Amino acid sequence: RLLLPGRQRWAQVRRVAYRIPCKFAPNMSTTSLVMVSEARRFIQECLSRVGVPAAKQRCVADLMLAADYRGVNGSGINRLDMYLSDLQHRYVDISADPILIHDTLTTAHVDGNRAMGVFVANYCMDLAMAKARQTGIGFVVANHSQHIGMAAWYAFRAVAKGYIALVMANTPPLMVAPGAREASVGENCLAFGATGNYSHLMLDMSTTMRDIGAIEWAFLTQQEIPPTWAADGSCTPTTLPNLALSAQQLYPIGGHQGFSLATMIDVLCGVMSGANYATRIPRWCVPCPRCAPNLGLAMLVLDPTFFVPDFNDRLDDFSRRIRSSCPANARNPVKMPGEVEKQQMDYVDELGALPYPNLLLAKCKLIANMLCVKPMQLAFEPCQRYSH
Amino acid sequence: RLLLPGRQRWAQVRRVAYRIPCKFAPNMSTTSLVMVSEARRFIQECLSRVGVPAAKQRCVADLMLAADYRGVNGSGINRLDMYLSDLQHRYVDISADPILIHDTLTTAHVDGNRAMGVFVANYCMDLAMAKARQTGIGFVVANHSQHIGMAAWYAFRAVAKGYIALVMANTPPLMVAPGAREASVGENCLAFGATGNYSHLMLDMSTTMRDIGAIEWAFLTQQEIPPTWAADGSCTPTTLPNLALSAQQLYPIGGHQGFSLATMIDVLCGVMSGANYATRIPRWCVPCPRCAPNLGLAMLVLDPTFFVPDFNDRLDDFSRRIRSSCPANARNPVKMPGEVEKQQMDYVDELGALPYPNLLLAKCKLIANMLCVKPMQLAFEPCQRYSH
Repeated sequence: RLLLPGRQRWAQVRRVAYRIPCKFAPNMSTTSLVMVSEARRFIQECLSRVGVPAAKQRCVADLMLAADYRGVNGSGINRLDMYLSDLQHRYVDISADPILIHDTLTTAHVDGNRAMGVFVANYCMDLAMAKARQTGIGFVVANHSQHIGMAAWYAFRAVAKGYIALVMANTPPLMVAPGAREASVGENCLAFGATGNYSHLMLDMSTTMRDIGAIEWAFLTQQEIPPTWAADGSCTPTTLPNLALSAQQLYPIGGHQGFSLATMIDVLCGVMSGANYATRIPRWCVPCPRCAPNLGLAMLVLDPTFFVPDFNDRLDDFSRRIRSSCPANARNPVKMPGEVEKQQMDYVDELGALPYPNLLLAKCKLIANMLCVKPMQLAFEPCQRYSH
Repeated sequence: RLLLPGRQRWAQVRRVAYRIPCKFAPNMSTTSLVMVSEARRFIQECLSRVGVPAAKQRCVADLMLAADYRGVNGSGINRLDMYLSDLQHRYVDISADPILIHDTLTTAHVDGNRAMGVFVANYCMDLAMAKARQTGIGFVVANHSQHIGMAAWYAFRAVAKGYIALVMANTPPLMVAPGAREASVGENCLAFGATGNYSHLMLDMSTTMRDIGAIEWAFLTQQEIPPTWAADGSCTPTTLPNLALSAQQLYPIGGHQGFSLATMIDVLCGVMSGANYATRIPRWCVPCPRCAPNLGLAMLVLDPTFFVPDFNDRLDDFSRRIRSSCPANARNPVKMPGEVEKQQMDYVDELGALPYPNLLLAKCKLIANMLCVKPMQLAFEPCQRYSH
């Protein structure tokens, strides 16, 4: 087995994004295209290097590529270094699978067993769907889970089978409660999906103004962030993503409401599941030796046909009514939750490849060098403006 | 039976709050105290005049007084005229009780039967708790419901028995979606409660920055509102509550996130229950003859002991961790959801009476005159600065 990079090296990879002292790195402002198959090859080879078996590699790559396809880039290939580092340092157990602690006809309590978040969440979603199929409802909570990536991924899996799904997960403390000077609760995320005949609805949000991944993405694409998103190290609103990333103090949506929603999600995912919660969760930037973050998640799946026979028609009508409300700009009709992501998917389809900012590609190149994996190739070499 | 006031007269009562053309009414800026027993007497007598039987009067008064006690004044005695008008015009059926359409071990679908919202919601909460007692979870949706008042009221009923409760309800379209010029979805509310040994958590929010009741209250207490709360008639942010009230276009929390949450609640409460949703719900200000609003609600009750044995201890620890995070102002520690309301209750206890703004008392006096009910007496006559 090859010598794998140490903790210091992974920290260095993250510093590519975090610690650039000037406002923005020069000459890094372009985006390059990468074919989906090439991005998949790269992700899977990297995972393979830290010991993830082939079938599991594919699951993780699916999740990341779906996030990049939908434009939820903070949960895309941008998360690769975190997953690789967690796997290599054994915060995540490569060989583990989640196990059932206890279940009833409609509920289940799962021990994530320190498996990768995507496997814990997939397992819980399968369980919740199986229960909803029989009784109209399935509710599953899990502990000893990890970062599950884009929560909408799991909601989509249920929505594809006609269910309504609510997916929640907690995260390390990243949210500054109103009136506080430090982060005490996670940017806990919530995804909700439902489908009609011709329309679907997919809400995917964190309880902070934007999740930390979106701020990382703003850095990678060298854009300023609105001052309502995050604080810098001195608890003052900042527009510079690198300051926001090193401080890790995000603002809740709507002040007390977003904070309250975050506590609700933490109670369901953390307190009730036996997982960690609030400040009991170690921060990402402070790796705690030999202790996994022990994150929690909660999922509710409903079969709408147990309640009304014409749910799909009603959801179509619901979407139509909201979409047809008078827009402020006549050429920009009102969008349902998930439509912006749908537009991004159309855009990626048109491009025929995934657009990645060059700073992200630089980070991937570092990973490739560290793991002795062939770097990710650009889709159209002549357009390549970045070289390392 | 006495001649009861017509639709025009009720509209006049609402105009007290809505249509005062100048910025604020002069000499109305004080607050007077009313004993709880006197407020209860007044509410019950008014309800009695429109034919509500004694036991039901008490339920409605409990709900309103609890809202005023907690400082959720928009759902307090301020809502009396709306309930009375609805009852008198038969949008609400005084004699009706909710009935069960269909249920399973864990779910139920209820027909609210156009009964008063408080009875529909109480019925659903009892049902959900009974199911949670047996299986750890209870999920109930209802249609043909009405305005349920303070959603936290029902969550408290479950929390008092050690359950975790999530209560959601939809409302007439009051929220302007991002990029829209008109309201298309409700300010749909969400309450969530859980209890530990020494702490409890009670989240009670609308998906708009503040609900319409809070804006009514701002008008009654003659305070400007932040421009982030609502638009005026020309779709521009306003700081004047009367303009906000006549336009009825509220802004969602956090832009797209709040709007998405509102659609989630509408899908669960409206689309899935068979109730009205989005623009299918008639607006409060446009009474539709012979058609009830047919609102929906959804409730999820969980018994945490089905998942972890020490939930109460864990919730105490969770609250302690967040409350002990470093505050921005040392004398103002971080507050958990529900603590501001707890402080208001302590304040009311200290006063020994409920503080009502004089504009609200003027509205109540109009109601008293219309229904030939003895007007509400102030607690300390010498302090009375307002006379009609």
